[in-house]
Amino acid sequence: MQDVILIGYGNVGQSLYKAIQATSGFRVTQIMVRTTAKVPGLPGTRVISDPKDLIKADLYLICVSDDAIREVSNSLPFDDRLVAHTSGAAPVSVLEKHRRTGVFYPLQSFSKSKEVVWKDVPLCLEANSVQDLNLLKQLAGSLSQRVYEINTEQRKKIHLAAVIVNNFVNHLYYLAENLCKDHDIPFEVLHPLIMETSGKILQLPPLEAQTGPARRNDQKTLNSHLLQVKGTSLEEIYTLLTSSIIATYGREKL
Amino acid sequence: MQDVILIGYGNVGQSLYKAIQATSGFRVTQIMVRTTAKVPGLPGTRVISDPKDLIKADLYLICVSDDAIREVSNSLPFDDRLVAHTSGAAPVSVLEKHRRTGVFYPLQSFSKSKEVVWKDVPLCLEANSVQDLNLLKQLAGSLSQRVYEINTEQRKKIHLAAVIVNNFVNHLYYLAENLCKDHDIPFEVLHPLIMETSGKILQLPPLEAQTGPARRNDQKTLNSHLLQVKGTSLEEIYTLLTSSIIATYGREKL
Repeated sequence: MQDVILIGYGNVGQSLYKAIQATSGFRVTQIMVRTTAKVPGLPGTRVISDPKDLIKADLYLICVSDDAIREVSNSLPFDDRLVAHTSGAAPVSVLEKHRRTGVFYPLQSFSKSKEVVWKDVPLCLEANSVQDLNLLKQLAGSLSQRVYEINTEQRKKIHLAAVIVNNFVNHLYYLAENLCKDHDIPFEVLHPLIMETSGKILQLPPLEAQTGPARRNDQKTLNSHLLQVKGTSLEEIYTLLTSSIIATYGREKL
Repeated sequence: MQDVILIGYGNVGQSLYKAIQATSGFRVTQIMVRTTAKVPGLPGTRVISDPKDLIKADLYLICVSDDAIREVSNSLPFDDRLVAHTSGAAPVSVLEKHRRTGVFYPLQSFSKSKEVVWKDVPLCLEANSVQDLNLLKQLAGSLSQRVYEINTEQRKKIHLAAVIVNNFVNHLYYLAENLCKDHDIPFEVLHPLIMETSGKILQLPPLEAQTGPARRNDQKTLNSHLLQVKGTSLEEIYTLLTSSIIATYGREKL
Protein backbone atom coordinates (compact mmCIF):
# COMPACT_ATOMS: atom_id res chain seq x y z
CA MET A 1 0.00 0.00 0.00
CA GLN A 2 1.42 3.40 -0.96
CA ASP A 3 0.47 6.55 0.88
CA VAL A 4 -0.74 9.72 -0.76
CA ILE A 5 -1.33 13.03 1.01
CA LEU A 6 -3.64 15.50 -0.69
CA ILE A 7 -2.95 19.18 -0.27
CA GLY A 8 -6.09 21.12 -1.13
CA TYR A 9 -9.60 19.72 -1.18
CA GLY A 10 -11.53 21.58 -3.87
CA ASN A 11 -13.26 19.92 -6.84
CA VAL A 12 -10.13 18.09 -7.98
CA GLY A 13 -9.03 17.11 -4.47
CA GLN A 14 -12.43 15.73 -3.50
CA SER A 15 -12.79 13.76 -6.69
CA LEU A 16 -9.23 12.41 -6.40
CA TYR A 17 -9.80 11.46 -2.77
CA LYS A 18 -12.74 9.22 -3.64
CA ALA A 19 -10.94 7.71 -6.61
CA ILE A 20 -7.70 6.97 -4.74
CA GLN A 21 -9.55 5.43 -1.79
CA ALA A 22 -11.21 3.05 -4.23
CA THR A 23 -7.87 1.69 -5.52
CA SER A 24 -6.25 -1.35 -3.96
CA GLY A 25 -2.66 -0.07 -4.07
CA PHE A 26 -2.98 3.50 -2.81
CA ARG A 27 -4.64 5.28 0.08
CA VAL A 28 -4.97 8.89 1.22
CA THR A 29 -3.55 9.16 4.73
CA GLN A 30 -3.87 12.91 5.24
CA ILE A 31 -5.57 15.89 3.65
CA MET A 32 -4.08 19.31 4.29
CA VAL A 33 -6.38 22.32 3.92
CA ARG A 34 -6.46 25.92 5.10
CA THR A 35 -9.52 25.41 7.30
CA THR A 36 -10.07 21.92 8.64
CA ALA A 37 -13.58 22.75 9.85
CA LYS A 38 -14.74 22.94 6.21
CA VAL A 39 -13.89 19.28 5.51
CA PRO A 40 -16.29 16.59 6.73
CA GLY A 41 -14.93 13.67 8.75
CA LEU A 42 -13.35 11.04 6.50
CA PRO A 43 -12.71 7.52 7.77
CA GLY A 44 -9.00 6.61 7.80
CA THR A 45 -7.84 10.04 6.68
CA ARG A 46 -6.76 12.83 9.01
CA VAL A 47 -7.53 16.38 8.00
CA ILE A 48 -4.85 18.89 9.04
CA SER A 49 -4.03 22.52 8.37
CA ASP A 50 -0.53 22.91 9.78
CA PRO A 51 2.33 21.65 7.54
CA LYS A 52 4.18 20.63 10.70
CA ASP A 53 1.58 17.89 11.18
CA LEU A 54 2.36 16.27 7.83
CA ILE A 55 3.51 12.67 8.14
CA LYS A 56 5.73 10.71 5.78
CA ALA A 57 4.10 9.57 2.53
CA ASP A 58 5.07 8.32 -0.92
CA LEU A 59 3.46 11.23 -2.71
CA TYR A 60 2.26 14.73 -1.79
CA LEU A 61 -0.31 15.81 -4.35
CA ILE A 62 -1.01 19.54 -4.51
CA CYS A 63 -4.58 20.22 -5.66
CA VAL A 64 -4.86 23.97 -5.15
CA SER A 65 -5.44 26.82 -7.62
CA ASP A 66 -2.50 27.68 -9.88
CA ASP A 67 -1.70 30.89 -8.05
CA ALA A 68 -1.30 29.12 -4.72
CA ILE A 69 0.88 26.18 -5.81
CA ARG A 70 4.25 27.82 -5.21
CA GLU A 71 3.36 29.10 -1.75
CA VAL A 72 1.93 25.75 -0.70
CA SER A 73 4.97 23.94 -2.10
CA ASN A 74 7.33 26.25 -0.20
CA SER A 75 5.41 25.66 3.03
CA LEU A 76 6.12 21.93 3.04
CA PRO A 77 8.77 21.28 5.74
CA PHE A 78 10.95 18.87 3.73
CA ASP A 79 12.64 18.78 0.34
CA ASP A 80 13.43 15.11 -0.27
CA ARG A 81 9.97 13.66 -0.85
CA LEU A 82 7.97 13.42 -4.07
CA VAL A 83 5.72 16.46 -4.54
CA ALA A 84 3.47 16.80 -7.60
CA HIS A 85 0.88 19.35 -8.65
CA THR A 86 -2.29 18.74 -10.65
CA SER A 87 -2.35 21.86 -12.83
CA GLY A 88 -2.49 22.03 -16.60
CA ALA A 89 -0.98 25.48 -16.79
CA ALA A 90 1.66 25.66 -14.04
CA PRO A 91 5.20 24.54 -14.94
CA VAL A 92 6.83 21.86 -12.84
CA SER A 93 9.34 24.53 -11.78
CA VAL A 94 6.92 26.15 -9.32
CA LEU A 95 7.80 23.20 -7.08
CA GLU A 96 11.52 24.07 -7.21
CA LYS A 97 11.96 24.01 -3.45
CA HIS A 98 11.82 20.23 -3.74
CA ARG A 99 14.32 17.83 -5.26
CA ARG A 100 11.74 15.24 -6.35
CA THR A 101 8.95 16.87 -8.30
CA GLY A 102 6.27 15.92 -10.77
CA VAL A 103 2.95 16.74 -12.39
CA PHE A 104 -0.23 14.70 -12.23
CA TYR A 105 -2.64 16.59 -14.49
CA PRO A 106 -6.12 15.17 -15.00
CA LEU A 107 -7.42 16.60 -18.27
CA GLN A 108 -11.09 16.93 -17.46
CA SER A 109 -13.40 19.69 -16.33
CA PHE A 110 -14.32 19.10 -12.72
CA SER A 111 -17.53 20.39 -11.27
CA LYS A 112 -19.36 19.65 -8.06
CA SER A 113 -22.55 18.76 -9.90
CA LYS A 114 -21.17 15.91 -11.98
CA GLU A 115 -19.27 12.81 -10.82
CA VAL A 116 -16.09 12.19 -12.83
CA VAL A 117 -15.57 8.78 -14.42
CA TRP A 118 -11.87 8.44 -13.65
CA LYS A 119 -11.16 5.50 -15.92
CA ASP A 120 -11.75 7.79 -18.94
CA VAL A 121 -9.84 10.80 -17.64
CA PRO A 122 -6.55 11.35 -19.48
CA LEU A 123 -3.77 11.72 -16.92
CA CYS A 124 -0.76 13.71 -18.09
CA LEU A 125 2.33 12.84 -16.10
CA GLU A 126 5.73 14.42 -15.69
CA ALA A 127 8.54 13.76 -13.21
CA ASN A 128 12.26 14.45 -12.99
CA SER A 129 13.34 10.88 -12.34
CA VAL A 130 12.36 7.55 -13.82
CA GLN A 131 11.56 6.18 -10.38
CA ASP A 132 9.19 9.00 -9.51
CA LEU A 133 7.60 8.83 -12.94
CA ASN A 134 6.96 5.15 -12.32
CA LEU A 135 5.19 5.87 -9.05
CA LEU A 136 2.98 8.46 -10.77
CA LYS A 137 2.33 5.96 -13.57
CA GLN A 138 1.29 3.32 -11.03
CA LEU A 139 -1.16 5.67 -9.37
CA ALA A 140 -2.43 6.94 -12.73
CA GLY A 141 -2.82 3.43 -14.08
CA SER A 142 -4.89 2.38 -11.11
CA LEU A 143 -7.29 5.30 -11.72
CA SER A 144 -7.50 5.57 -15.51
CA GLN A 145 -6.95 3.74 -18.76
CA ARG A 146 -5.55 6.87 -20.36
CA VAL A 147 -2.09 7.66 -19.09
CA TYR A 148 0.27 9.96 -21.01
CA GLU A 149 3.80 11.11 -20.39
CA ILE A 150 3.72 14.81 -21.22
CA ASN A 151 6.41 17.44 -20.69
CA THR A 152 5.78 20.97 -19.42
CA GLU A 153 5.81 22.53 -22.88
CA GLN A 154 3.35 19.94 -24.25
CA ARG A 155 1.15 20.33 -21.19
CA LYS A 156 0.88 24.08 -21.85
CA LYS A 157 -0.30 23.30 -25.38
CA ILE A 158 -2.79 20.71 -24.15
CA HIS A 159 -4.19 23.25 -21.75
CA LEU A 160 -4.59 25.72 -24.60
CA ALA A 161 -6.16 23.06 -26.83
CA ALA A 162 -8.51 22.17 -23.98
CA VAL A 163 -9.69 25.78 -23.82
CA ILE A 164 -10.46 25.56 -27.54
CA VAL A 165 -12.40 22.28 -27.49
CA ASN A 166 -14.13 22.90 -24.18
CA ASN A 167 -14.51 26.59 -23.33
CA PHE A 168 -14.78 27.92 -26.88
CA VAL A 169 -17.01 25.09 -28.06
CA ASN A 170 -19.32 25.58 -25.09
CA HIS A 171 -19.48 29.30 -25.88
CA LEU A 172 -20.56 28.48 -29.43
CA TYR A 173 -23.32 26.31 -27.92
CA TYR A 174 -24.33 29.32 -25.86
CA LEU A 175 -24.45 31.62 -28.90
CA ALA A 176 -26.54 29.08 -30.80
CA GLU A 177 -28.88 28.71 -27.83
CA ASN A 178 -29.35 32.48 -27.75
CA LEU A 179 -30.21 32.51 -31.42
CA CYS A 180 -32.80 29.79 -30.77
CA LYS A 181 -34.28 31.66 -27.80
CA ASP A 182 -34.60 34.85 -29.84
CA HIS A 183 -36.75 32.97 -32.34
CA ASP A 184 -38.81 30.73 -30.04
CA ILE A 185 -36.97 27.59 -31.11
CA PRO A 186 -36.33 24.95 -28.44
CA PHE A 187 -32.54 24.54 -28.13
CA GLU A 188 -33.01 20.79 -27.80
CA VAL A 189 -33.68 20.68 -31.54
CA LEU A 190 -29.89 21.05 -31.85
CA HIS A 191 -28.94 18.41 -29.27
CA PRO A 192 -28.66 15.45 -31.68
CA LEU A 193 -26.50 17.44 -34.09
CA ILE A 194 -24.24 18.52 -31.23
CA MET A 195 -23.78 14.92 -30.10
CA GLU A 196 -23.26 13.75 -33.68
CA THR A 197 -20.59 16.40 -34.26
CA SER A 198 -18.56 15.48 -31.19
CA GLY A 199 -19.04 11.72 -31.63
CA LYS A 200 -17.82 11.91 -35.21
CA ILE A 201 -14.28 12.94 -34.28
CA LEU A 202 -13.79 9.66 -32.44
CA GLN A 203 -13.90 8.05 -35.88
CA LEU A 204 -12.91 10.71 -38.37
CA PRO A 205 -10.17 13.39 -38.30
CA PRO A 206 -11.85 16.82 -38.00
CA LEU A 207 -10.31 17.87 -41.31
CA GLU A 208 -12.35 15.16 -43.05
CA ALA A 209 -15.42 15.50 -40.85
CA GLN A 210 -15.94 19.14 -41.88
CA THR A 211 -19.14 19.88 -43.79
CA GLY A 212 -21.23 23.00 -44.41
CA PRO A 213 -21.33 26.12 -46.55
CA ALA A 214 -17.83 27.37 -45.67
CA ARG A 215 -16.25 24.03 -46.53
CA ARG A 216 -18.12 24.02 -49.86
CA ASN A 217 -17.39 27.74 -50.27
CA ASP A 218 -21.13 28.10 -50.95
CA GLN A 219 -21.28 31.89 -51.30
CA LYS A 220 -25.06 32.04 -51.58
CA THR A 221 -25.66 30.43 -48.19
CA LEU A 222 -22.73 32.29 -46.61
CA ASN A 223 -24.15 35.61 -47.79
CA SER A 224 -27.59 34.76 -46.51
CA HIS A 225 -26.11 33.91 -43.10
CA LEU A 226 -23.97 37.06 -43.06
CA LEU A 227 -27.06 39.12 -43.75
CA GLN A 228 -28.80 37.46 -40.80
CA VAL A 229 -25.98 38.03 -38.32
CA LYS A 230 -25.14 41.56 -39.50
CA GLY A 231 -25.01 43.97 -36.58
CA THR A 232 -25.43 41.19 -33.99
CA SER A 233 -22.85 39.80 -31.59
CA LEU A 234 -22.48 36.84 -33.95
CA GLU A 235 -21.23 38.87 -36.91
CA GLU A 236 -17.51 38.86 -36.11
CA ILE A 237 -17.45 35.24 -34.98
CA TYR A 238 -19.37 34.07 -38.04
CA THR A 239 -17.05 35.99 -40.35
CA LEU A 240 -13.81 34.91 -38.71
CA LEU A 241 -14.60 31.20 -38.37
CA THR A 242 -15.97 31.09 -41.90
CA SER A 243 -12.78 32.66 -43.32
CA SER A 244 -10.72 30.24 -41.27
CA ILE A 245 -12.59 27.24 -42.70
CA ILE A 246 -12.37 28.60 -46.25
CA ALA A 247 -8.63 29.22 -45.79
CA THR A 248 -8.15 25.67 -44.48
CA TYR A 249 -9.74 24.00 -47.48
CA GLY A 250 -8.39 26.58 -49.91
CA ARG A 251 -4.90 25.65 -48.77
CA GLU A 252 -5.76 21.98 -49.11
CA LYS A 253 -6.50 22.33 -52.82
CA LEU A 254 -3.26 24.12 -53.71
CA MET B 1 -50.60 2.76 -46.74
CA GLN B 2 -49.63 6.21 -48.00
CA ASP B 3 -47.43 6.70 -51.02
CA VAL B 4 -44.34 8.86 -51.13
CA ILE B 5 -42.31 9.70 -54.21
CA LEU B 6 -38.73 10.81 -53.71
CA ILE B 7 -37.25 13.31 -56.11
CA GLY B 8 -33.48 13.15 -55.87
CA TYR B 9 -31.46 10.27 -54.47
CA GLY B 10 -28.33 11.74 -52.85
CA ASN B 11 -27.33 11.23 -49.20
CA VAL B 12 -30.66 12.49 -47.85
CA GLY B 13 -32.77 10.68 -50.44
CA GLN B 14 -31.03 7.34 -49.93
CA SER B 15 -31.27 7.54 -46.19
CA LEU B 16 -34.93 8.60 -46.35
CA TYR B 17 -35.71 5.78 -48.76
CA LYS B 18 -34.48 3.13 -46.35
CA ALA B 19 -36.21 4.75 -43.40
CA ILE B 20 -39.58 5.18 -45.14
CA GLN B 21 -39.56 1.61 -46.47
CA ALA B 22 -39.10 0.43 -42.89
CA THR B 23 -42.31 2.16 -41.69
CA SER B 24 -45.63 0.36 -41.68
CA GLY B 25 -47.75 3.29 -42.88
CA PHE B 26 -45.71 4.71 -45.75
CA ARG B 27 -43.93 3.38 -48.81
CA VAL B 28 -41.81 4.87 -51.58
CA THR B 29 -43.46 4.05 -54.88
CA GLN B 30 -41.17 5.98 -57.23
CA ILE B 31 -37.80 7.69 -57.18
CA MET B 32 -37.15 10.37 -59.77
CA VAL B 33 -33.53 11.14 -60.64
CA ARG B 34 -31.65 12.75 -63.49
CA THR B 35 -29.89 9.52 -64.54
CA THR B 36 -31.71 6.29 -63.73
CA ALA B 37 -28.66 4.16 -64.55
CA LYS B 38 -26.93 5.49 -61.41
CA VAL B 39 -29.56 4.05 -59.06
CA PRO B 40 -29.43 0.34 -58.26
CA GLY B 41 -32.57 -1.80 -58.64
CA LEU B 42 -34.89 -1.35 -55.65
CA PRO B 43 -37.67 -3.88 -54.97
CA GLY B 44 -41.15 -2.33 -55.16
CA THR B 45 -39.91 1.09 -56.23
CA ARG B 46 -39.62 2.27 -59.82
CA VAL B 47 -36.80 4.61 -60.72
CA ILE B 48 -37.69 7.19 -63.34
CA SER B 49 -36.14 10.31 -64.84
CA ASP B 50 -38.99 11.83 -66.84
CA PRO B 51 -41.55 13.86 -64.82
CA LYS B 52 -44.23 12.63 -67.26
CA ASP B 53 -43.80 9.14 -65.76
CA LEU B 54 -44.71 10.31 -62.24
CA ILE B 55 -47.75 8.54 -60.83
CA LYS B 56 -50.18 9.82 -58.21
CA ALA B 57 -48.91 9.86 -54.62
CA ASP B 58 -49.74 11.41 -51.26
CA LEU B 59 -46.44 13.26 -51.03
CA TYR B 60 -43.67 14.30 -53.41
CA LEU B 61 -40.51 14.82 -51.40
CA ILE B 62 -37.78 16.85 -53.10
CA CYS B 63 -34.31 15.82 -51.87
CA VAL B 64 -32.05 17.75 -54.22
CA SER B 65 -29.48 20.50 -53.54
CA ASP B 66 -30.90 23.91 -52.63
CA ASP B 67 -30.07 25.46 -55.98
CA ALA B 68 -32.03 22.85 -57.90
CA ILE B 69 -35.24 22.79 -55.83
CA ARG B 70 -37.12 25.47 -57.78
CA GLU B 71 -36.34 23.99 -61.17
CA VAL B 72 -37.31 20.50 -60.05
CA SER B 73 -40.49 21.82 -58.47
CA ASN B 74 -41.43 23.64 -61.66
CA SER B 75 -40.86 20.51 -63.70
CA LEU B 76 -43.57 18.54 -61.88
CA PRO B 77 -46.57 18.26 -64.26
CA PHE B 78 -49.31 19.04 -61.70
CA ASP B 79 -50.04 21.75 -59.14
CA ASP B 80 -52.66 20.20 -56.85
CA ARG B 81 -50.63 17.58 -55.00
CA LEU B 82 -48.53 17.94 -51.83
CA VAL B 83 -44.92 18.80 -52.65
CA ALA B 84 -42.33 19.31 -49.89
CA HIS B 85 -38.61 19.96 -49.89
CA THR B 86 -36.05 18.80 -47.34
CA SER B 87 -33.79 21.86 -47.16
CA GLY B 88 -32.87 23.85 -44.08
CA ALA B 89 -32.05 27.01 -46.00
CA ALA B 90 -34.59 27.20 -48.85
CA PRO B 91 -37.87 29.00 -48.14
CA VAL B 92 -41.11 27.16 -48.76
CA SER B 93 -41.80 29.74 -51.48
CA VAL B 94 -39.41 28.07 -53.96
CA LEU B 95 -42.24 25.57 -54.42
CA GLU B 96 -44.67 28.32 -55.41
CA LYS B 97 -45.77 26.60 -58.58
CA HIS B 98 -47.79 24.29 -56.35
CA ARG B 99 -50.86 25.00 -54.26
CA ARG B 100 -50.07 22.43 -51.54
CA THR B 101 -46.52 22.87 -50.28
CA GLY B 102 -44.45 22.02 -47.27
CA VAL B 103 -41.03 21.45 -45.76
CA PHE B 104 -39.70 18.26 -44.27
CA TYR B 105 -36.25 19.23 -42.97
CA PRO B 106 -34.17 16.60 -41.17
CA LEU B 107 -31.68 18.46 -38.99
CA GLN B 108 -28.73 16.14 -39.19
CA SER B 109 -25.52 15.96 -41.16
CA PHE B 110 -25.81 13.18 -43.68
CA SER B 111 -22.77 11.39 -44.99
CA LYS B 112 -22.35 8.20 -46.95
CA SER B 113 -19.97 6.74 -44.38
CA LYS B 114 -22.30 6.81 -41.40
CA GLU B 115 -25.83 5.36 -41.11
CA VAL B 116 -28.34 7.85 -39.69
CA VAL B 117 -30.39 6.81 -36.65
CA TRP B 118 -33.68 8.32 -37.76
CA LYS B 119 -35.50 8.07 -34.48
CA ASP B 120 -33.15 10.74 -33.04
CA VAL B 121 -33.18 13.07 -36.04
CA PRO B 122 -35.15 16.27 -35.38
CA LEU B 123 -37.65 16.77 -38.19
CA CYS B 124 -38.71 20.36 -38.78
CA LEU B 125 -42.05 20.56 -40.54
CA GLU B 126 -43.94 23.31 -42.30
CA ALA B 127 -47.03 23.22 -44.49
CA ASN B 128 -49.65 25.68 -45.69
CA SER B 129 -52.69 23.72 -44.57
CA VAL B 130 -53.54 21.82 -41.39
CA GLN B 131 -54.34 18.70 -43.41
CA ASP B 132 -50.99 18.67 -45.18
CA LEU B 133 -49.14 19.43 -41.96
CA ASN B 134 -50.89 16.42 -40.45
CA LEU B 135 -49.68 14.16 -43.22
CA LEU B 136 -46.10 15.40 -42.77
CA LYS B 137 -46.47 14.89 -39.01
CA GLN B 138 -47.63 11.32 -39.56
CA LEU B 139 -44.65 10.52 -41.74
CA ALA B 140 -42.25 12.34 -39.40
CA GLY B 141 -43.70 10.61 -36.35
CA SER B 142 -43.22 7.22 -37.92
CA LEU B 143 -39.53 7.98 -38.52
CA SER B 144 -38.47 10.00 -35.49
CA GLN B 145 -39.33 10.85 -31.90
CA ARG B 146 -38.35 14.48 -32.45
CA VAL B 147 -40.91 16.29 -34.56
CA TYR B 148 -41.11 20.10 -34.58
CA GLU B 149 -43.40 22.54 -36.32
CA ILE B 150 -41.06 25.25 -37.57
CA ASN B 151 -41.82 28.17 -39.86
CA THR B 152 -39.54 29.38 -42.65
CA GLU B 153 -38.02 32.20 -40.60
CA GLN B 154 -37.27 29.86 -37.68
CA ARG B 155 -35.84 27.26 -40.02
CA LYS B 156 -33.40 29.81 -41.40
CA LYS B 157 -32.22 30.49 -37.84
CA ILE B 158 -31.94 26.78 -37.07
CA HIS B 159 -29.82 26.33 -40.15
CA LEU B 160 -27.55 29.17 -38.99
CA ALA B 161 -27.40 27.73 -35.45
CA ALA B 162 -26.55 24.34 -36.94
CA VAL B 163 -23.59 25.87 -38.74
CA ILE B 164 -22.40 27.23 -35.39
CA VAL B 165 -22.72 24.01 -33.37
CA ASN B 166 -21.61 21.69 -36.14
CA ASN B 167 -19.34 23.37 -38.70
CA PHE B 168 -17.72 25.92 -36.40
CA VAL B 169 -17.33 23.46 -33.53
CA ASN B 170 -15.75 20.90 -35.83
CA HIS B 171 -13.36 23.57 -37.09
CA LEU B 172 -12.31 24.29 -33.50
CA TYR B 173 -11.61 20.56 -33.12
CA TYR B 174 -9.46 20.82 -36.22
CA LEU B 175 -7.50 23.79 -34.87
CA ALA B 176 -6.92 21.97 -31.56
CA GLU B 177 -5.81 18.86 -33.42
CA ASN B 178 -3.27 20.93 -35.37
CA LEU B 179 -1.90 22.37 -32.15
CA CYS B 180 -1.51 18.83 -30.81
CA LYS B 181 0.20 17.62 -33.98
CA ASP B 182 2.66 20.51 -33.88
CA HIS B 183 3.75 19.41 -30.41
CA ASP B 184 3.70 15.61 -30.78
CA ILE B 185 0.63 15.24 -28.61
CA PRO B 186 -1.87 12.53 -29.58
CA PHE B 187 -5.20 14.29 -30.33
CA GLU B 188 -7.02 11.45 -28.56
CA VAL B 189 -5.89 12.96 -25.27
CA LEU B 190 -8.65 15.53 -25.91
CA HIS B 191 -11.38 13.04 -26.85
CA PRO B 192 -12.85 12.59 -23.36
CA LEU B 193 -13.01 16.34 -22.79
CA ILE B 194 -14.72 16.82 -26.15
CA MET B 195 -17.35 14.21 -25.29
CA GLU B 196 -17.80 15.63 -21.78
CA THR B 197 -18.31 19.13 -23.18
CA SER B 198 -21.01 18.10 -25.62
CA GLY B 199 -22.67 15.68 -23.21
CA LYS B 200 -22.91 18.36 -20.55
CA ILE B 201 -25.32 20.55 -22.50
CA LEU B 202 -27.92 17.79 -22.42
CA GLN B 203 -28.14 18.49 -18.69
CA LEU B 204 -26.95 22.05 -18.19
CA PRO B 205 -27.63 25.26 -20.14
CA PRO B 206 -24.38 26.34 -21.86
CA LEU B 207 -24.42 29.61 -19.92
CA GLU B 208 -24.00 27.63 -16.69
CA ALA B 209 -21.75 24.94 -18.15
CA GLN B 210 -19.09 27.50 -19.09
CA THR B 211 -15.73 27.14 -17.30
CA GLY B 212 -12.18 28.25 -18.03
CA PRO B 213 -9.92 31.30 -17.86
CA ALA B 214 -12.17 33.62 -19.88
CA ARG B 215 -15.18 32.84 -17.70
CA ARG B 216 -13.09 33.52 -14.57
CA ASN B 217 -11.47 36.51 -16.31
CA ASP B 218 -8.15 34.96 -15.25
CA GLN B 219 -5.81 37.47 -16.90
CA LYS B 220 -2.64 35.56 -16.08
CA THR B 221 -3.71 32.41 -17.95
CA LEU B 222 -5.27 34.44 -20.76
CA ASN B 223 -2.03 36.36 -21.26
CA SER B 224 0.01 33.17 -21.25
CA HIS B 225 -2.28 31.71 -23.91
CA LEU B 226 -2.21 34.90 -25.97
CA LEU B 227 1.57 34.80 -25.92
CA GLN B 228 1.49 31.23 -27.19
CA VAL B 229 -0.91 31.90 -30.06
CA LYS B 230 0.66 35.23 -31.08
CA GLY B 231 1.42 35.30 -34.80
CA THR B 232 -0.32 31.95 -35.43
CA SER B 233 -3.60 31.30 -37.17
CA LEU B 234 -5.17 30.86 -33.72
CA GLU B 235 -4.48 34.41 -32.55
CA GLU B 236 -7.59 36.11 -33.90
CA ILE B 237 -9.91 33.26 -32.96
CA TYR B 238 -8.52 33.02 -29.45
CA THR B 239 -8.84 36.76 -28.95
CA LEU B 240 -12.35 37.07 -30.34
CA LEU B 241 -13.91 34.09 -28.55
CA THR B 242 -12.23 35.09 -25.29
CA SER B 243 -13.63 38.63 -25.51
CA SER B 244 -17.02 37.21 -26.34
CA ILE B 245 -16.99 34.98 -23.24
CA ILE B 246 -15.75 37.82 -21.03
CA ALA B 247 -18.46 40.10 -22.41
CA THR B 248 -21.10 37.44 -21.74
CA TYR B 249 -20.25 37.04 -18.08
CA GLY B 250 -19.40 40.71 -17.64
CA ARG B 251 -22.93 41.53 -18.77
CA GLU B 252 -24.31 38.88 -16.45
CA LYS B 253 -22.90 40.65 -13.39
CA LEU B 254 -24.38 44.07 -14.22
